[in-house]
Amino acid sequence: MGKKYRTSYQIPFYESDINHHVKLPHILSIALQIASDQSVELGLGDERIFKDYNLVWVVSEHEVIIDRLPQFNEIVEIETEPLSYNRYFCYREFRIYDKKGEKMMTIFSTFVLMDYDTRKVHEVPEDLIAPYESEKIRKILRGPKYRALEKAAETLYHVRYFDLDVNGHVNNSRYLEWMYDVLDFTFLKTHIPQKINLKYVKEIQYGNDIASRWEQDGLITKHEITSNGQLNAQAITQWEEV
Amino acid sequence: MGKKYRTSYQIPFYESDINHHVKLPHILSIALQIASDQSVELGLGDERIFKDYNLVWVVSEHEVIIDRLPQFNEIVEIETEPLSYNRYFCYREFRIYDKKGEKMMTIFSTFVLMDYDTRKVHEVPEDLIAPYESEKIRKILRGPKYRALEKAAETLYHVRYFDLDVNGHVNNSRYLEWMYDVLDFTFLKTHIPQKINLKYVKEIQYGNDIASRWEQDGLITKHEITSNGQLNAQAITQWEEV
Repeated sequence: MGKKYRTSYQIPFYESDINHHVKLPHILSIALQIASDQSVELGLGDERIFKDYNLVWVVSEHEVIIDRLPQFNEIVEIETEPLSYNRYFCYREFRIYDKKGEKMMTIFSTFVLMDYDTRKVHEVPEDLIAPYESEKIRKILRGPKYRALEKAAETLYHVRYFDLDVNGHVNNSRYLEWMYDVLDFTFLKTHIPQKINLKYVKEIQYGNDIASRWEQDGLITKHEITSNGQLNAQAITQWEEV
Repeated sequence: MGKKYRTSYQIPFYESDINHHVKLPHILSIALQIASDQSVELGLGDERIFKDYNLVWVVSEHEVIIDRLPQFNEIVEIETEPLSYNRYFCYREFRIYDKKGEKMMTIFSTFVLMDYDTRKVHEVPEDLIAPYESEKIRKILRGPKYRALEKAAETLYHVRYFDLDVNGHVNNSRYLEWMYDVLDFTFLKTHIPQKINLKYVKEIQYGNDIASRWEQDGLITKHEITSNGQLNAQAITQWEEV
């Protein structure tokens, strides 16, 4: 019910995997870019809200539903719509369509506004959110319960220079890369995700090693990213054989 | 003197570094994408030359000259021109301009055509190269001498699932990431490259660990990527303090 924003996008070579599918972390990056483009169009770009409110947008959770993955060279239409918000959370959907207009993917994302100095979540200012025309709701929309992993396998990764983005911490897209990378190569070649729930808990700074922990039960994988004994992100993925 | 092709490009958030500069490996990926876009426009896309000639384009060397690095959100113009070719090598330039028309970067790249089955370099077919209108030359244009490193430091990297591209081997852009990543964090924060010579020697497959080896002498760094005792890539970078 909010203002929609739409753009087309061609899947580039360097972001396509060995199965000629788009790399999923890249799709999440593109989605965030498009949300940001809409904000700029509404006169509410990141620089403006930082200057006027001392706030920054942070994504806290994604639910990704995949009917078909975009392929190398394919031109897709990506639509985003800020659906609703409550006191602290803003909910936005992304929909990816093929050229026939068939829906390929839906991403339902939860955003919060963080105070740049205190690093704490800030209430959503009414004048900041009004131009998006999304619905004010009272309800808090929650993702699934991510239970702590009990008998997880674990692989260590060192945070690299290019993992960091302009905010100086690890870019959102890396978490999903680390989660994928621990899985068996043959499994990754023969399966694609149907549904991913991914929750960002705590940002990661440079200089840390992280652990990518996982449990697999058939077509369900559960993931945790941890560093220094702290939880940074959690995910549950349901896979499908291709 | 060849047919020029030009496009504009906005530097995205997720490919910008902590200094708000574009990540250089990304610029190399974009350049290759644009070369490929030009080929498609000329009716000589990768699929066509694979089907009709059993050949694939491979980049063998880059010389990158940087006056100023594109910044996060900046819209740049990227022009490419296939300059010349000889029996085996095709030379192409990329030029990046800011919105005032000032040149920011030049990339001079050497391409070869590889036979898909034999994995050997193939002579450039005249009918394939003619539409680019580049100059036929007899001379082989060589990059610098990359001497073997003698007292190099070394860091090991494991090849990850998402390092692979649609060809099933490590994407070109990763080599430069590994070369950067070994350098001191404070050095990377306070320096940008002025000139990079980068030579691809041998492709890397999944399952290998690679070594990123380097020597630093003030503002010059020299790099080697090796795996299984074989040389995969070499580079020389000249840095400038910012």
